[in-house]
Amino acid sequence: MKTLQNLFEDGLRDIYYAEKRILEALPKMADAAAAEQATKAFRLHREQTEGQIGRLEQVFDLIGQKPSGKKCPAIDGILEEGDEILKEYADSPSLDAGLIAAAQAVEHYEMARYGTLATWAAQLGLDDAAALLDETLQEEKLTDDLLTQLAEEIANPEAVEAEG
Amino acid sequence: MKTLQNLFEDGLRDIYYAEKRILEALPKMADAAAAEQATKAFRLHREQTEGQIGRLEQVFDLIGQKPSGKKCPAIDGILEEGDEILKEYADSPSLDAGLIAAAQAVEHYEMARYGTLATWAAQLGLDDAAALLDETLQEEKLTDDLLTQLAEEIANPEAVEAEG
Repeated sequence: MKTLQNLFEDGLRDIYYAEKRILEALPKMADAAAAEQATKAFRLHREQTEGQIGRLEQVFDLIGQKPSGKKCPAIDGILEEGDEILKEYADSPSLDAGLIAAAQAVEHYEMARYGTLATWAAQLGLDDAAALLDETLQEEKLTDDLLTQLAEEIANPEAVEAEG
Repeated sequence: MKTLQNLFEDGLRDIYYAEKRILEALPKMADAAAAEQATKAFRLHREQTEGQIGRLEQVFDLIGQKPSGKKCPAIDGILEEGDEILKEYADSPSLDAGLIAAAQAVEHYEMARYGTLATWAAQLGLDDAAALLDETLQEEKLTDDLLTQLAEEIANPEAVEAEG
C-alpha cells in the first residue's frame, strides 16, 4: 500500500531530476538571450538552481536517503518547448520574450511541485524538510515575478518596437 | 523574421492543444478519486475547461484565425505524470493527494501560459483578447487555491490517517 511518505519520496526524486535538467538548460538560454538583463536573469537563476539542488540534498539527508532522480516527463516536455523557441526564434527580435516565457513555464512547474512537497512534508511532521522546501518555493515565486517584470519592461517592448 | 505576433499565435495553438488534452484527462481523474469533494473538484474543473476553450476560440476569432492546436510536449509530459499516479497509487489512501498534486501541476502550466499570453496580447494592442485571457488566468488561480485547500483539509489528512 502506497503512503503519503511514498508520494513525498517520489516527488522529491521527480524534482531532483528536474532541477538537474534545468541546471543544464539555463546556460544555453543565457548564451542565446539578446538583452543583457535577460542573460543576467538566466545566470542568476542558474546559481539559484544550484542552491535549490543543495537544499533537496539536505531534505534527502533528513529522511535518511541518498539523493536520486526519477525521470520526469513534465520537465522534459517543458524544456523541449524551450528548445523549440531557441531554434525557431533564433536571431528574431522576439527571442527574449519567448525565452522568458519558457523560463516562466519552468518556474511554474517548480512552484507547483515545491508547494505540494512543502505541504506534504509538514503533514508528515517533517518540519525541517518543510522549511527547506518552502524556502525554495519563495525563491521561485520571486524569480517568476522578476521574469514578468523583465518581459513587460524590456523583452516585449523590444520585440514590438522591432516590428513597428 | 519571427515577431511577437508569431509568438502569440504559436502560444495560442499550444494552449488550445493543452486544454483539449486536459478536457480528456479530467474525467479519468474524477472517476478515480476516492473523496467525493475531489471528484466534484475535477468535474468542476472540466466544466471550466470547456469555458476556457470557448474563450480561446473567441481569441482566435478576434485575430481572424481558425482555432487550431499545436502539439505541446509540456502538457503531454505533465499528464503522463498524472497517469503514472493513477496507475501506481490506485486503491491507495494517498491516491487523492497524488491526483490533486497532478492537477496543480496542470493549473500551474496554464497559469504560466495564460499569464504570458495576456501580457503579449496587451502589448500587441489586442485588448479584448487580453481581457479574455486574463479572465481564464484568474479562474486558474482560484482553482489552484481550491485544490490547495482540498489537499490540506481532506486528501492529505486522510492519507496520513490511513497510515497511522
